[in-house]
Amino acid sequence: MDDSLIPRRELDFLLFDLLEVERLAERPRHADHGRDTIAAMLDTAEALARDHFAPHNRKADEAEPRLENGRVVTIPEVGAALRRFSEAGFMAAVGDAEWGGLQVPYSVNLAINALFSAANISTMTYAFLTQAAANLISVFGSQAQKETWLPPLLAGDFFGTMALTEPQAGSSLADLRTRAEPQEDGSYRLFGAKIFISGGEHELARNIVHLVLARLPDAPPGVKGISLFLVPRFLPGPDGAPGEKNDIALAGLIHKMGYRGTTSTLLNFGEAEGATGWLVGEAGQGLAAMFHMMNESRVIVGNGAAALGHAGYRQSLAYARERAQGRPPGAKDPATPQVPILRHADVKRMLLAQKAYAEGALALTLYCGRLIDDEHTADDAPARAEARRLLDILTPIAKSWPSQWCLEGNNLAIQVLGGYGYTRDYPVEQTWRDNRLNPIHEGTHGIQAQDLLGRKVRQEDGAAFALLCDRIEATIAASRDTPPLASHAGALENILVRVRATTAGLLAAMAGGRAETALGHASVYLEALGHVVVAWLWLKQARVAQAGLDAAPAAAEHAFLTGKLAACHHFFAWELPRVGPWLDGLAVLDGTWASLPEDCF
Amino acid sequence: MDDSLIPRRELDFLLFDLLEVERLAERPRHADHGRDTIAAMLDTAEALARDHFAPHNRKADEAEPRLENGRVVTIPEVGAALRRFSEAGFMAAVGDAEWGGLQVPYSVNLAINALFSAANISTMTYAFLTQAAANLISVFGSQAQKETWLPPLLAGDFFGTMALTEPQAGSSLADLRTRAEPQEDGSYRLFGAKIFISGGEHELARNIVHLVLARLPDAPPGVKGISLFLVPRFLPGPDGAPGEKNDIALAGLIHKMGYRGTTSTLLNFGEAEGATGWLVGEAGQGLAAMFHMMNESRVIVGNGAAALGHAGYRQSLAYARERAQGRPPGAKDPATPQVPILRHADVKRMLLAQKAYAEGALALTLYCGRLIDDEHTADDAPARAEARRLLDILTPIAKSWPSQWCLEGNNLAIQVLGGYGYTRDYPVEQTWRDNRLNPIHEGTHGIQAQDLLGRKVRQEDGAAFALLCDRIEATIAASRDTPPLASHAGALENILVRVRATTAGLLAAMAGGRAETALGHASVYLEALGHVVVAWLWLKQARVAQAGLDAAPAAAEHAFLTGKLAACHHFFAWELPRVGPWLDGLAVLDGTWASLPEDCF
Repeated sequence: MDDSLIPRRELDFLLFDLLEVERLAERPRHADHGRDTIAAMLDTAEALARDHFAPHNRKADEAEPRLENGRVVTIPEVGAALRRFSEAGFMAAVGDAEWGGLQVPYSVNLAINALFSAANISTMTYAFLTQAAANLISVFGSQAQKETWLPPLLAGDFFGTMALTEPQAGSSLADLRTRAEPQEDGSYRLFGAKIFISGGEHELARNIVHLVLARLPDAPPGVKGISLFLVPRFLPGPDGAPGEKNDIALAGLIHKMGYRGTTSTLLNFGEAEGATGWLVGEAGQGLAAMFHMMNESRVIVGNGAAALGHAGYRQSLAYARERAQGRPPGAKDPATPQVPILRHADVKRMLLAQKAYAEGALALTLYCGRLIDDEHTADDAPARAEARRLLDILTPIAKSWPSQWCLEGNNLAIQVLGGYGYTRDYPVEQTWRDNRLNPIHEGTHGIQAQDLLGRKVRQEDGAAFALLCDRIEATIAASRDTPPLASHAGALENILVRVRATTAGLLAAMAGGRAETALGHASVYLEALGHVVVAWLWLKQARVAQAGLDAAPAAAEHAFLTGKLAACHHFFAWELPRVGPWLDGLAVLDGTWASLPEDCF
Repeated sequence: MDDSLIPRRELDFLLFDLLEVERLAERPRHADHGRDTIAAMLDTAEALARDHFAPHNRKADEAEPRLENGRVVTIPEVGAALRRFSEAGFMAAVGDAEWGGLQVPYSVNLAINALFSAANISTMTYAFLTQAAANLISVFGSQAQKETWLPPLLAGDFFGTMALTEPQAGSSLADLRTRAEPQEDGSYRLFGAKIFISGGEHELARNIVHLVLARLPDAPPGVKGISLFLVPRFLPGPDGAPGEKNDIALAGLIHKMGYRGTTSTLLNFGEAEGATGWLVGEAGQGLAAMFHMMNESRVIVGNGAAALGHAGYRQSLAYARERAQGRPPGAKDPATPQVPILRHADVKRMLLAQKAYAEGALALTLYCGRLIDDEHTADDAPARAEARRLLDILTPIAKSWPSQWCLEGNNLAIQVLGGYGYTRDYPVEQTWRDNRLNPIHEGTHGIQAQDLLGRKVRQEDGAAFALLCDRIEATIAASRDTPPLASHAGALENILVRVRATTAGLLAAMAGGRAETALGHASVYLEALGHVVVAWLWLKQARVAQAGLDAAPAAAEHAFLTGKLAACHHFFAWELPRVGPWLDGLAVLDGTWASLPEDCF
């Protein structure tokens, strides 16, 4: 097996044992996707990831896309891998059957994508972007737009991008300047510069469908004046096939520290007559449309970070099993053979921490995937609304927690390998560099924190936060009767009481004229709530594992389930306790950093 | 000013206000180095670092040393910068006057080196290695060896290396295999492979002096059989000048994630008749000699990490002052101009954290530098012994704390820049990559932890630990009378009581047959004690700053000192509280990770 892949038992545990995704086949949309079908898809994904994604992960890092005679040249393995991915149907996984989609549950698709991301996240990014563009068009596009664009996107014949960011605006979308001028035929001409557009120019697909945020001439300033446009690289000819080149100029390639296989571009829309595009959804609703999709894109980023957490864990575990060095304490005789470093307690510590981060993170993102499924297909409206609420509040955590802690896990993976880990002869340094993007794109950590404390915790009178607390309470209550887990349940209960009080205190501060001070601590709040949520999901995993162990399983299964309990124990012993000091600080809200004059730095 | 350099006010604060290095001029060895002389050296260093080190930092990263016709080719700026460095006398800074050295205090030299490291750590590494080799020869070499090798090393005419690590041994020096066969003329012939030899082969100096650990034919196994040899790249001719090439073959260049300007090599000693070398010090005392120098080399690694912490802080601060994006809370009108991101509380949080890490780390390493000075030149033997004891226990912390937390600071620097920080157009990503080596070389974090808990805390019946606690107590006692600092003093007192108890508990566990479990938690202990030590040094810094503020200084000085107090406050509010949960875990010592069967990972 490739050392970077997520073991199948782990995916089965999360999908079937924890999230019971096979029950989604009871819903009409997913009727074709029972346990056997899902298992077969995972088999195919595993083989493809191992044979066609992992092998060029390093090569794509070393030979990043480059300009040659005005064209972006990518190593051939990238396009070949994505063609196989599309041919196997994965590009169409979650799409509607009407347009060629397979209607796979979202949670299952996240697990599939995690497999590919662990093998090669930069090649996989082209697929994410294409899936996301197709999703957006399927929700907001007109019937004609769906007919034109969805079949080739789902077939992987065309790829997609999201063109939001502009050089002068960064995270401040209110300051976008790209403008769209209406034409008599109902189309628009776009003029403006976009930056950090992943997959913005390449020869990997017959066309590229850019989803672009821009302003109409009469639009109000700020976010309410932003509309969404579909702007293809090649304009469709009479037969719908890619025809004339659109007025979109590649203004430069961006050279990144990692994710190097994914081309990142500066694009100029409209250097001459304007780039032809079409409005998607309603005028002035561009940001709303983007935000509608944002939950899913942010969960995808977190899921990719979790996948890289697994990759680093597996890579360093494989090394630790094979590398002989040193001897156990008390057996220092240099005439005896050296032992695998996995025998050393400190190496075990670094591996168990990685396991707790990576498996905790993937449980979180797949749990969110399951909520996306429920939001779309649960039996009744209240269940769908409840899923949406939980997803709303968990999304900033699902984006940021894996990005932060699986990066820390990758840091430990390097440390397990020591000097070798710092060389480019081993994969862990690239995994760490790749993962460093995840706390930045799709909204930085700070933006997620503002979203959580400034919006999600407050919305609907705190309904989402209350619901999350109820869910955590339910797991605590159920775990009190399982003796090995009772102490964890008690620890989580104690911290949850404090989280509720801290949240109330922050809301009171915001309502009482201290909004800036309170929101200035949003990142700390995000960290605290993130650790609590992952502790909760670890307790859920431990309940499943304990039940499995109680059934006296075979040796391999016994080891797997014991590992789950150990990782849960580790999280409660060494990670959850970090929350206490954060909550202490949030109770004080002293505001040193916010009030410090700028010349004191 | 270059954005990566450490501000002069900061260095002056640490050297003169905190450590009172000008008082070292009272000692005969340093009589030439009063405040004015030191200031002049810092001026020269600042100009050289800015004009000749910083400009090629990125270029050296992009064009790492490569093999061409059997020679290692380095970009010309590296050699040019080092020649200027040597011509200005910096290579000879701490050396004895007898051999051309300037007898600069060690603490001052660390500050000078930090300036150069912040500008370009990979070029600076050639200088560190040369200084370290010269130091080792000056302590352990014979008179003839000193005469032959010290003058050209101190002149920067020859460079040095430390050749310890072997591919099969890594951190386990007991397993070194390189052998040295005595010859009739008193020299030795060496045979063996060494890996990760920084500066192991290049054309930057007329000769390279390798200090190599190897075994004599009759040596016992393990660390007691290791001797130290001086093995030059070119054998000295009759006139002492580099003559015939020695039997040392470059077996390969190592391609690293960072520190790319420093060539790292695989060297084969003795592919034919054997590499000619000479014993340095006594047979079987090689590791002792290396360890004698280890305190200094480890402090140098921590000092480099602190310098990179400053570099990232300054780079991101400069960006935050200039980059306009978004608006303050409550002023969301998109028609108003965007503000510099330094106005945003979350950006200030990330900058203040970096400041607390970088300035805390540099205070720690320079404090250790001051102890090295006292160890060598304090007036009486008890004072020298006390300095040596404190240095012994602080060394693993001075090596690991800056390496860990300034790396985290660099992570925050990237985050301040957002998407731009992830590109290679800005310096912060390289700073982060470079700094990632520091938790690995000169003994990994785990090795430092074993050194601290397994050796330093226990040695001499705990004398060093007791002395450290006494010093911390003294600062606490003195700070109780300074009202703004009294609460910090109280917090530190409370945690120190717990650290003492935890340490006693760990020592009892080790004595009581639980050594493996206790030592399996050594990394946690290292983190806890590290944070306590840096909190103590922040309190010391704050005392100096408060005294300065009480004197009603001018505006710029007021801002500088206020910044110091704010960083201290930040450390006590958000960093010191991390220690509580670590101590809780150390009290439990549950050993989950150590006892987990290997098939459960």
